[in-house]
Amino acid sequence: MRALNQRLVLDRLREHGEATRPEIAGHTGLSKPTVGQALLDLEQHGLVQAIGRRLDRPGRAAVVYRTAPDAGHIVGVDVGRRVVHVAVANLDGVVVARVEQPNRSRSGAMLVRIVGESVARAVAEAGLTGDDIVVTVVGTPGIPDTDTGTVHRSPNLPGWERRGLLGELMALLGANGSTVLVENDANLCAVGEHARGAAQGVDVVACLTVGTGIGMGILVGGNLFRGARGAAGEIADLPYGRVPAGVTSHRPGPVEVVAAGDAVVSAARSAGLSLSTAKAVFEAARAGDERAVRVVADEASKLARVVSVVTAVLDPGLIVLAGGIGRNVDLLADPMRRELAETIPLVPDIVGGELGDDAVLVGAIATAMDTAWDLVFERRVLGR
Amino acid sequence: MRALNQRLVLDRLREHGEATRPEIAGHTGLSKPTVGQALLDLEQHGLVQAIGRRLDRPGRAAVVYRTAPDAGHIVGVDVGRRVVHVAVANLDGVVVARVEQPNRSRSGAMLVRIVGESVARAVAEAGLTGDDIVVTVVGTPGIPDTDTGTVHRSPNLPGWERRGLLGELMALLGANGSTVLVENDANLCAVGEHARGAAQGVDVVACLTVGTGIGMGILVGGNLFRGARGAAGEIADLPYGRVPAGVTSHRPGPVEVVAAGDAVVSAARSAGLSLSTAKAVFEAARAGDERAVRVVADEASKLARVVSVVTAVLDPGLIVLAGGIGRNVDLLADPMRRELAETIPLVPDIVGGELGDDAVLVGAIATAMDTAWDLVFERRVLGR
Repeated sequence: MRALNQRLVLDRLREHGEATRPEIAGHTGLSKPTVGQALLDLEQHGLVQAIGRRLDRPGRAAVVYRTAPDAGHIVGVDVGRRVVHVAVANLDGVVVARVEQPNRSRSGAMLVRIVGESVARAVAEAGLTGDDIVVTVVGTPGIPDTDTGTVHRSPNLPGWERRGLLGELMALLGANGSTVLVENDANLCAVGEHARGAAQGVDVVACLTVGTGIGMGILVGGNLFRGARGAAGEIADLPYGRVPAGVTSHRPGPVEVVAAGDAVVSAARSAGLSLSTAKAVFEAARAGDERAVRVVADEASKLARVVSVVTAVLDPGLIVLAGGIGRNVDLLADPMRRELAETIPLVPDIVGGELGDDAVLVGAIATAMDTAWDLVFERRVLGR
Repeated sequence: MRALNQRLVLDRLREHGEATRPEIAGHTGLSKPTVGQALLDLEQHGLVQAIGRRLDRPGRAAVVYRTAPDAGHIVGVDVGRRVVHVAVANLDGVVVARVEQPNRSRSGAMLVRIVGESVARAVAEAGLTGDDIVVTVVGTPGIPDTDTGTVHRSPNLPGWERRGLLGELMALLGANGSTVLVENDANLCAVGEHARGAAQGVDVVACLTVGTGIGMGILVGGNLFRGARGAAGEIADLPYGRVPAGVTSHRPGPVEVVAAGDAVVSAARSAGLSLSTAKAVFEAARAGDERAVRVVADEASKLARVVSVVTAVLDPGLIVLAGGIGRNVDLLADPMRRELAETIPLVPDIVGGELGDDAVLVGAIATAMDTAWDLVFERRVLGR
């Protein structure tokens, strides 16, 4: 019972921020003495802290409590083809350390090592040790299959699909007792944009990530929709007209071949532009280079086609464009909207993500938060 | 409190079927006298009935109770382009009367009249009056928008999209006090196959209905997924390669133009077969006519393409094929599976619907059931 009261008081503080004993009593329906005892217990366990007094009325000064942000820490990891991003956050979700590590790995084992070292470095920079980390959430391309400890369908990361490799990564990151969760990166991007970015409060959202690969995270009522086998939103697999000759099926998916980063660069080259990154192509278009403008228009048309398909199946209220290519929403959104208005009856809103490179990390931290509070409560109050 | 106990006992009987007073007490946690009183009350309200005694132990014979199936009745309506089906069911979901009325309407008002007359006829055949009908659930092609009383995107029913027409239909069917719910027919088909047919127990299901039109109902965790504007599964709108010349965009959707009933018939004609229905084309293929076999193979390929798109977005565990064309699963499923195995990495199971023409009605009745019990409880116990 005593633990249950503490849980009620803690959840109340988590949801609504700082509050006084009488306020919490009013909201939870518990008596003031019960709330007082629960606050005392929670304070002793290091889960809440008094932060001052509120002088609401003459002669009375109620102590204001809030959750203790340092009751535990969480780690978010974004495993990208070119860079591994790591963030350490407290239980308020405030980032206290960040690491960016270039990824030049040519094998899965090497990338596991890079991720492990980056996490260790970020934890050290935060002035913490591995024991302080309650939950680690990893975003990766592909479909993480924790049953077999394997990532499926992640062709852009060399060696990453090796059987059992995900198990090795999870064992490494969990060595000090942290719970480790692994999620598709486009899914985390959607969670991030819903929690803190462009999709806040939207019921049905598809976050379309276009960069070195193409992925999509789907949220329904704020919850990730993963499909029957975790492959919902794997739109790299969409059939897409004719696939260029010499491309073996499935790896990477047809849409990825025609519309992701490499395709933009090679389209620019075919148009006579010697640019080596998609970013440079978009910059050239922005500067008015007609060849680049045409390449970008073509890319917008391909993405419009993807959105038209997604809309017919899913009817999202909002499409969030993210990733190195998707972020060029100033150039892409208008032509996409025009093409969609001509091809489908109900065009969803199209906006750019607001979190840029941080979307996956923000999603990882948001994903970690509830689990982290459950775990610190279990450890400190229930003594498990 | 007394009403609450009755509700608990009623729900228990609804969920687990017939039971004795001690059994109900054991399962609900209520005392035997409380359960006894609640059963007495419910019996007086006509919501439960004693059906006999169970001789479990020597010297004791507990009365067995069950919900009273005739405490109310519900009506399911399937508005099809060629036929309007109506079923009247009791609160066990047992159909007590059916009506099939050919639909040759050339205006929305005419079809409203046909539906109204068919329902009245079915109610009379069941020996009931309109007052006995608690809930009426109507399945229609398109997107019913009850806010504006209008059906959107239902091009195959002449005049059916007229603004306010849905409101007229709902007013007519609700004239005697019945609650009226309207749902997309492919959605109800999915609900039906999940409740009683091929999709029982499956978490993520897409029910692909191919007949005079093409539609899809999506169920996630047993609940309909409707999308942001009720248009999820409106796959008639999928872009589909080149649309035949002369087809105006949007009405009907591209996939409908290339893969629904009329397309099969006209493909057969182009192949030199003078058959006037899709059914006849499938029969000819079954009989070994090579031209018909080629038309069917082509149709399977088109449907495989639709499924590949749906799978990339949604990752369903099961595709249920239904409708006049979809039901030819003996001819369609194998070539579809073969083509899918070549084009996408995770092929969902493909099965035929088990409910045939009844799927929409079964879904309508399943949809009506919970609401109907809520309403009869409100009326009879709470006196609202």
